[in-house]
Amino acid sequence: MENSNTRVRIKVWIECETGETLFGEGQLKILEAIENYGSISAAAKSMRMGYRSMWGRLKKIEQRMGKPLLIRQKGGVSGGQSILTPEAKVMVHRFKQLQVRLNDVSGKIFKDIYLG
Amino acid sequence: MENSNTRVRIKVWIECETGETLFGEGQLKILEAIENYGSISAAAKSMRMGYRSMWGRLKKIEQRMGKPLLIRQKGGVSGGQSILTPEAKVMVHRFKQLQVRLNDVSGKIFKDIYLG
Repeated sequence: MENSNTRVRIKVWIECETGETLFGEGQLKILEAIENYGSISAAAKSMRMGYRSMWGRLKKIEQRMGKPLLIRQKGGVSGGQSILTPEAKVMVHRFKQLQVRLNDVSGKIFKDIYLG
Repeated sequence: MENSNTRVRIKVWIECETGETLFGEGQLKILEAIENYGSISAAAKSMRMGYRSMWGRLKKIEQRMGKPLLIRQKGGVSGGQSILTPEAKVMVHRFKQLQVRLNDVSGKIFKDIYLG
C-alpha cells in the first residue's frame, strides 16, 4: 500500500441531523447538467434520465434545501429554458470548493501517513 | 444548508491505479473484528457473516495487499485463535489515522466554506 501506484479516494456529502443527505455528488451532477444544457429535458437526456425522474429529483433537492433552484423561462424559439437561481449557483460553487479542497488535503494526509 | 444542524460526511478508501479498492471501511471492520474477537469464526459471527464468506474476504485483502494478515494458532482449550500480523496492525492503525484526520479537517473546511 506504500507504493506510488496507490491513492486515496474520498466521497463527500452534506447531511442533516437525521442522517438524510442534503447535498452530494448526485445533486451536484443534476444542477451542473442544467447549468450546462439550459433545460431540464436536455439535462435529463445528457444523464440518460427521464424528464419526470429528473423533475422529481429537483423537487426533492428544493424541498430539502428549502430554496428554489431554477428560474424557468417558458416558450420562445428554443422552447422552455431553465437556469439556476443565484442560490443554486452558490450551492454548486460551494460544494465543488468542498470537493476540491478535501481532495487536495486528503492526498497530503495520505502521503503523510503512508509515505512520510 | 448554512445552519448548524447540517454536517459534512466523508467516506475514504485507498485504491490502486486500476481503480480497485485496496483498503476501505469494509476491510477495516473485518480486521478490527478479528482483533477484538480473536478468531475468524467469532469475528464473522459478530458481523453476521458466514465463516467462509469472512475467510474469502480475508484472502482477497491479503492478495491485494500482498501481505499476510493473520497469525493462526490452532487448537488449545479455546479452539483456533487468530491474531493480526504486525503488518495488518499497521494497516488498521494507519487507515484509522487517515479517517480521523480527514474527518477532522473536513469539518473545518466545511465550516470555512459554508459558515465562514
